[in-house]
Amino acid sequence: MDYQDLLRDLSRETPSRIVMLVLDGLGGLAREPGGKTELETANTPNLDALAAQSICGLLDPIAPGITPGSGPGHLALFGFDPIRWNMGRGVLEACGINFPLRHGDIAIRINFCTVDGNGIITDRRAGRISTDKCKELAAELDKIKVPGVELMVRPVKEHRAVVVFRGEDLGDALKDTDPQVVGKPPIPLAPHDPASAKTAGFVNTWLDQAKKILAPHHPANMLLLRGFASYKPYPTFAEVYKLKAAAIAQYPMYRGLAQIVGMDILDSGTELPDLITTLEQAWDKYTFFFVHVKKTDSAGEDGDFDRKVSVIEGVDALIPRLMSLKPDVVVVTGDHSTPAVIKGHSWHPLPALIYSACCRADLVTEFSEQACIAGGLGRMDTVSLMPLALANAQKLDKFGA
Amino acid sequence: MDYQDLLRDLSRETPSRIVMLVLDGLGGLAREPGGKTELETANTPNLDALAAQSICGLLDPIAPGITPGSGPGHLALFGFDPIRWNMGRGVLEACGINFPLRHGDIAIRINFCTVDGNGIITDRRAGRISTDKCKELAAELDKIKVPGVELMVRPVKEHRAVVVFRGEDLGDALKDTDPQVVGKPPIPLAPHDPASAKTAGFVNTWLDQAKKILAPHHPANMLLLRGFASYKPYPTFAEVYKLKAAAIAQYPMYRGLAQIVGMDILDSGTELPDLITTLEQAWDKYTFFFVHVKKTDSAGEDGDFDRKVSVIEGVDALIPRLMSLKPDVVVVTGDHSTPAVIKGHSWHPLPALIYSACCRADLVTEFSEQACIAGGLGRMDTVSLMPLALANAQKLDKFGA
Repeated sequence: MDYQDLLRDLSRETPSRIVMLVLDGLGGLAREPGGKTELETANTPNLDALAAQSICGLLDPIAPGITPGSGPGHLALFGFDPIRWNMGRGVLEACGINFPLRHGDIAIRINFCTVDGNGIITDRRAGRISTDKCKELAAELDKIKVPGVELMVRPVKEHRAVVVFRGEDLGDALKDTDPQVVGKPPIPLAPHDPASAKTAGFVNTWLDQAKKILAPHHPANMLLLRGFASYKPYPTFAEVYKLKAAAIAQYPMYRGLAQIVGMDILDSGTELPDLITTLEQAWDKYTFFFVHVKKTDSAGEDGDFDRKVSVIEGVDALIPRLMSLKPDVVVVTGDHSTPAVIKGHSWHPLPALIYSACCRADLVTEFSEQACIAGGLGRMDTVSLMPLALANAQKLDKFGA
Repeated sequence: MDYQDLLRDLSRETPSRIVMLVLDGLGGLAREPGGKTELETANTPNLDALAAQSICGLLDPIAPGITPGSGPGHLALFGFDPIRWNMGRGVLEACGINFPLRHGDIAIRINFCTVDGNGIITDRRAGRISTDKCKELAAELDKIKVPGVELMVRPVKEHRAVVVFRGEDLGDALKDTDPQVVGKPPIPLAPHDPASAKTAGFVNTWLDQAKKILAPHHPANMLLLRGFASYKPYPTFAEVYKLKAAAIAQYPMYRGLAQIVGMDILDSGTELPDLITTLEQAWDKYTFFFVHVKKTDSAGEDGDFDRKVSVIEGVDALIPRLMSLKPDVVVVTGDHSTPAVIKGHSWHPLPALIYSACCRADLVTEFSEQACIAGGLGRMDTVSLMPLALANAQKLDKFGA
């Protein structure tokens, strides 16, 4: 029995409400030794006041030193052991476009690429063709029929698309055909078990036809396959936590991640205040709200320290509206760090706060990486956050007699 | 998949260099309530300055409350789950004398002992015979032939030796023959499974001959067998972490431990400064250096508080030479505590620091047990140290998409 199985046994439905506010890529680093991080630089009177009433700490998304992608980072926030429940790239990509996967589907990411007359790869991204061209090619490839299996090809963006194979007993123990470098041909499929050999048979038949269709479409005259992944349904928030859960997220990937754990996906607008407006409108219908802010991460990825500071301040300004709804529990944290100085995800732990009437507030009065070190949560793995949120909402029964 | 399997997937080779400086038995205790530990007593301006630029914390070698031997303590430092990878005593003893074990070898520690005319043990250590006598007896026992198995006996020190059985499908599910008290005879072997019964057959045949050989050598007229252990090769630093790793250690046991995880063993002299001289000379050839200081532990074991303080100060004086090499990551900690007041290993957590350009330094400005409580690492298990060192050296890819 793991932690989540225990929660499944202990959780009960109550009317109390939890808001989990996730600032994507929240954690940061100072620009120079002894300096302040983005969050420490931002003027955040409302988050600081909330921290003063909360229990604070630092969270490792997966484990110390591990830099998570968005998939594992969010699974941990949702209380799923991110290593046990790790999602293959193909499945994640399909979730990102809200493709309705079924149990046993094999989802694979497609990268359109360029090959020369000898089939040698000259550009692994086909010159980043337009998304319109991607749509056109995906529609062509979607028409291919392979006896014995159902096939769906969907465009994602630029040179990226997804193909899903739906059939009986298909395995996913197949390595990428992408050699990761130019100057080589695509790698032939080498299945690791009989179920995957079955998949490989269908994929090869499809590939033969796909090659002919793509041949005249230089620079997208070939494709590479990455991240073969079989889809298994995830337990839902309703099953495991007895929560009526809603996702308020403006980006497809996070809406997809929320959907696979059974959250309702709400129309959430495009601007920061729209998130809270959506929350206000849906307030009476749910007991859990996942509110996702993307722009902190985007600014970090772009290396734009000041923009990240500004997005954090924008979120801070919304806290009074959030608190006026009188939520029973508020959690504020991120899925991983994205320090502007690194221009990408990092392993650094995330500041986190849990507010409730019974949280046993600590002495932290500032919501920041440095201040949260001294918080009552200490340093813990993110997977423990959902159990603590449920406990603070008085939604967990006693374990054992 | 465990933590280390994950690292195997994520690690990549880069030119950045990590130095792990291990002060054996570093953690201590005050001589009187309210007093200072050995480390807190020592004048360590260089370690304190390094701590100010680092992220600090307290590490539990195995888990809270567990006092480790040198084997598990170092496996944890090397990033190996010390419970999963626990090494039998026989294997550890063989490693300590650099015996070249092969996969499937059964290594057993020998304690020469004294028995009376009825075979009752009167001294479990044979009056701590000289190491020369031990060598003579081991050479005699090494000559015994047992059909179906290869046998090697090697001296260790005083009354201690090692015997290795090499054959097909030998099991190690055998309890010690040492009853742990005088006044009883050695315990007969009672194998727990068929493979161990096979081992027991060979061991008993060998024991019959060994008894006859030892009979005239009072007080070493008998032997006890402890720590039956089958050797399985460990994953190496090259395989798991993509590191070119070198060990700079002056004591055989630690050289042996480093060797079994694939480190190159460097000639390291006998004095503290020799460690850094060796480091300087090998700097260009490796990306990871394990630098082991034994004398902190020896002083603690001897109950010599002041000598331990003095060794720590000796190490502190070497820090400028270490830092002038411009390592990308420096880790300073120990494998376990050896408080002089306890005169032995203890369970107390170890102060630890990780220095790098992106470590997110905390507010700790002193390298000590007390100051590290407030560090940004919090309190964590030692097994997380290697992943953090790799992350700080930017040697880990992102987990999941």
